[in-house]
Amino acid sequence: MNRETLHKEILKKKSFLCIGLDTDMQRLPNCVKNADDPVFEFNRRIIDATRDYCVAYKLNTAFYEANGASGWHTLDKTMRYIGKSHFTIADAKRGDIGNTCDMYARAFFEAMNCDAVTLSPYMGSDSVTPFFKYAEKFSIVLGLTSNPSAVDFQNAKDQDGNDWFMHVIKTASGWGTADNMMFVVGATRAEYLADIRKIIPDHFLLIPGVGAQGGSLEDVVKYGMNKQIGLLINASRSIIYASSDDAFDSAAAKEAQTIQQAMSKFIS
Amino acid sequence: MNRETLHKEILKKKSFLCIGLDTDMQRLPNCVKNADDPVFEFNRRIIDATRDYCVAYKLNTAFYEANGASGWHTLDKTMRYIGKSHFTIADAKRGDIGNTCDMYARAFFEAMNCDAVTLSPYMGSDSVTPFFKYAEKFSIVLGLTSNPSAVDFQNAKDQDGNDWFMHVIKTASGWGTADNMMFVVGATRAEYLADIRKIIPDHFLLIPGVGAQGGSLEDVVKYGMNKQIGLLINASRSIIYASSDDAFDSAAAKEAQTIQQAMSKFIS
Repeated sequence: MNRETLHKEILKKKSFLCIGLDTDMQRLPNCVKNADDPVFEFNRRIIDATRDYCVAYKLNTAFYEANGASGWHTLDKTMRYIGKSHFTIADAKRGDIGNTCDMYARAFFEAMNCDAVTLSPYMGSDSVTPFFKYAEKFSIVLGLTSNPSAVDFQNAKDQDGNDWFMHVIKTASGWGTADNMMFVVGATRAEYLADIRKIIPDHFLLIPGVGAQGGSLEDVVKYGMNKQIGLLINASRSIIYASSDDAFDSAAAKEAQTIQQAMSKFIS
Repeated sequence: MNRETLHKEILKKKSFLCIGLDTDMQRLPNCVKNADDPVFEFNRRIIDATRDYCVAYKLNTAFYEANGASGWHTLDKTMRYIGKSHFTIADAKRGDIGNTCDMYARAFFEAMNCDAVTLSPYMGSDSVTPFFKYAEKFSIVLGLTSNPSAVDFQNAKDQDGNDWFMHVIKTASGWGTADNMMFVVGATRAEYLADIRKIIPDHFLLIPGVGAQGGSLEDVVKYGMNKQIGLLINASRSIIYASSDDAFDSAAAKEAQTIQQAMSKFIS
């Protein structure tokens, strides 16, 4: 899915919600535990119930790898089940030398056919540019993350006294364009969004941290929205674990709808 | 495997060689292509032929993920085949928030039962310390990598005018100990090893870049060796693709033995 289509989907659904399918085998409701593939059954029901309220799904690879080869199979099957109606993100935070990135690109853009993969920038341009060989696919580079220890390095200063994450976003944004790159910016750090928008006015931002982690939708919109909306706000636990009873999918739908309705006010 | 045992294995074998099983499906010799699991068959023959010359094997997860769920199965099967006689490394370069790291630790330290996993430090201590819950397992944090674009960020300066990778190694080394952490330092940048050893005299270093990437064994030993040897030097392509004919395993063994013999001179 390209940027233009993503923008159209956002306008159509009046939503820029991304749902994070961080499905933990150990937190499944009892009612799916006897299915052939309990994690897939859980995902399938969440997807069926929430499709209309979101434009994207993000699957965090760790939660699938924890179940070994069968977990990878579930990851792949879930991506296929979502299909091409939604923007799909493999939240993998990969980053390696060039010939290895070619392999990761094959894994996520060919075998799994996702629209985007998250990448960690520590190893520089070699760890991002190989992914650009694929048209209409996105590399989503970590900028400013939502976790407490993000400050360890991302808020350390560069030699000009600027925060390191600003140095990273500035440098990395020169490697590609708004048509093949996005950046991760945590909602818990919304005060930085205005400065980030000065560097990358056009890129989409993937924003975790609204919901369980406490970030504010209003602040993110105020400082981060651009002409194409330019935001994918991710919520994971607050939606998929809204209830642990048999009607967990309806509870997830209700939660997703509440967020979608709040978002709709910002889309004219 | 703990640090003490690793040291003993190095002395016993007079080798600190780590062999990288970056096995590319598209570069397999014809003679294994009809096996049930061609990548595993290739790995099995390489392992059988090289066991005596190395103390560690490193499997780059990208090369397995490129083959989807069956690739992950091959990765797992290869780790089990190596067994506990050698130090096993999942070269995964993961890095995420705390609850996600718990999942990665489950994937690599429980399901796959490796001795170590490589981690990218961009997200700070949250992305490393969850792995410390497992005794006698190692988090190998990216310090200075061997790829050309490592300079993009790793050699940018911090506010004190120091290289960024030194800032990272200094900070990250405070999170754990030499018994649960190692660092990646590329052999192509051996001139930095003396400075790095001032910060982390005791930690093992995982050193890629000798072989195909052109780093020098002598320089690495000169600047990087400590009282416990403290080095795992990785070679991948130069060993596993030493030949593409039917005797690819003997060719790999010969190459590994040549490196082991060069290493033996530095072990008294």
